[in-house]
Amino acid sequence: MDNERIINLSHGSGGSRTLKLIKEVFAGAFRTPQLLELDDAAVMDGETVFTTDSYVVRPIFYPGGDIGSLSIYGTVNDLVVMGARPLFVSSSFIIEEGFEIAALKKIALSMQDAAGRAGVSIVTGDTKVVERGNADGLYITTAGIGKLIVEPRPCRERIEAGNKIILTGYIADHGLAVILARGELNLTADIKSDAAPLTGLLLPHLDGSVRFMRDPTRGGVAMVLNEAVDGMDFGILIEEEAIPLRRESGSLCEILGFDPLYIGNEGKAVIFVSGDSAESLLEKLRQHPLGKESSIIGEVTEGRPGKVVMQTATGGLRIIDMPVGEQLPRIC
Amino acid sequence: MDNERIINLSHGSGGSRTLKLIKEVFAGAFRTPQLLELDDAAVMDGETVFTTDSYVVRPIFYPGGDIGSLSIYGTVNDLVVMGARPLFVSSSFIIEEGFEIAALKKIALSMQDAAGRAGVSIVTGDTKVVERGNADGLYITTAGIGKLIVEPRPCRERIEAGNKIILTGYIADHGLAVILARGELNLTADIKSDAAPLTGLLLPHLDGSVRFMRDPTRGGVAMVLNEAVDGMDFGILIEEEAIPLRRESGSLCEILGFDPLYIGNEGKAVIFVSGDSAESLLEKLRQHPLGKESSIIGEVTEGRPGKVVMQTATGGLRIIDMPVGEQLPRIC
Repeated sequence: MDNERIINLSHGSGGSRTLKLIKEVFAGAFRTPQLLELDDAAVMDGETVFTTDSYVVRPIFYPGGDIGSLSIYGTVNDLVVMGARPLFVSSSFIIEEGFEIAALKKIALSMQDAAGRAGVSIVTGDTKVVERGNADGLYITTAGIGKLIVEPRPCRERIEAGNKIILTGYIADHGLAVILARGELNLTADIKSDAAPLTGLLLPHLDGSVRFMRDPTRGGVAMVLNEAVDGMDFGILIEEEAIPLRRESGSLCEILGFDPLYIGNEGKAVIFVSGDSAESLLEKLRQHPLGKESSIIGEVTEGRPGKVVMQTATGGLRIIDMPVGEQLPRIC
Repeated sequence: MDNERIINLSHGSGGSRTLKLIKEVFAGAFRTPQLLELDDAAVMDGETVFTTDSYVVRPIFYPGGDIGSLSIYGTVNDLVVMGARPLFVSSSFIIEEGFEIAALKKIALSMQDAAGRAGVSIVTGDTKVVERGNADGLYITTAGIGKLIVEPRPCRERIEAGNKIILTGYIADHGLAVILARGELNLTADIKSDAAPLTGLLLPHLDGSVRFMRDPTRGGVAMVLNEAVDGMDFGILIEEEAIPLRRESGSLCEILGFDPLYIGNEGKAVIFVSGDSAESLLEKLRQHPLGKESSIIGEVTEGRPGKVVMQTATGGLRIIDMPVGEQLPRIC
């Protein structure tokens, strides 16, 4: 019963409990049309897009990245998948007393480097300090502003049966790299975070054929696909063998009992595209260094409305449910 | 020496050490023209203004307000003092495991109420949960977007000798109410937070005669005045007797040894206005419920460049320095 009364880690998982909390507490109170759409970003005046995210990743530094670059890519990518060119970013820091200033400098430089890669300017910010024991080193909240560059913009309402689904690269590496870096699993593996900005990969190829895009972060690809079909009159069929997954990551998931479809990424996109444009978009994405492993992983079906089904490598069918409860906490 | 190597509470005070940290770590790394101005908000494309702040106030609920309304007013007021009409706000929550959902609902409703009073829409947000012991209940980060409504906009470069300085109401109440609510002082007093949005009070009266505005939050009025003169060829002379201060707040400051000029507020403005427009602006401000106690507290002088000097009630002169070190932590 306590679960219904107090916040627990599953409320931050990005899965169904996060969605329930947002619907019940925030969308209920704020009642803004943009918020009720439960998008990752809000379109304000027909062309300006606004988004925010807090980053609480643990540890702050991990192979392939750190909280600084992640806080830039995450906000940039939320704008890009809306069909917007990211322009300006704000950054607000909550710092625990005792944090090393040298580490803060390193993170600021990492943010600036990430902003350069993503094509945005960090224009405003804030710094708060809390007493020792009231934070875990450093939390960063970024907000971002972008301008829509395609009309009609990609949105869930434009998905229809026959659309193909493209995944732009290997999944699970970011989440696994962060989990391994905690050192609690007594495992080592050659897995690095591949967090990256989607600006250069996606923006040049946006046109009306792109129906919907999302970057699969908390809750992974499973969450994005389930949000796409939730309450809709279509389903999704994906093929396990078509999902880009590095051998090392696949093996590690097997050892740990994780399903890679539920592991958070940063810098990957799930793209719903008109069936007749899928192959040509795939070709273009594969030309880009960040899209070389792009793959058509499945399609939107008339059958099984509201469900995500996977044809497994062994030929069976498996329902991919919306993530419930705690996934991997604090990977972003 | 540790003070130079690690973050301590004074880095979050809003005083000279915060300024030093921002200059050395963030402005150094980000090198964006807007950030180098060290304003509370950034002007992006000539008319859009963007700002962000994190709120770590302790306790979360206090007489007269809570972290929710504060997080809206703070961001709204940073836009208003730039000369902009606030339009859209984002809100991002970092919640400690174990926080009560009922309290979260109360805070969300308080934010919506505050947004209504301030004339803004909360359009996008994020929710993260951290394990017990890794936050202090709840931290909120808001970002805000507004449009400039006056040209030329109020900015520090437009201050000149002969300008009058108006303070729009009683100071210190917000900071004192929060400190008292912690219950650590074993004192009670009838002091409530008077945090409020400045939208209705200030926006109708903006014209070229308004040279510079700031809302005195962390570091108080002393910080705003010192930032105004820092490195400039003018000084400021204020009169102690002209500073609006409630009797209860003044007495409490005396008991506690606080200087009210250094205590944080939310919902007050310090306005630099052309000498010949000061009286008429004062009259207009006093018509508004939030401006009834407005007062001309002093003026910009050619003498004593870079210094803020106060004529005390007893007739002496006292230098009002920039706040150094820890003020009252976590009042915003």
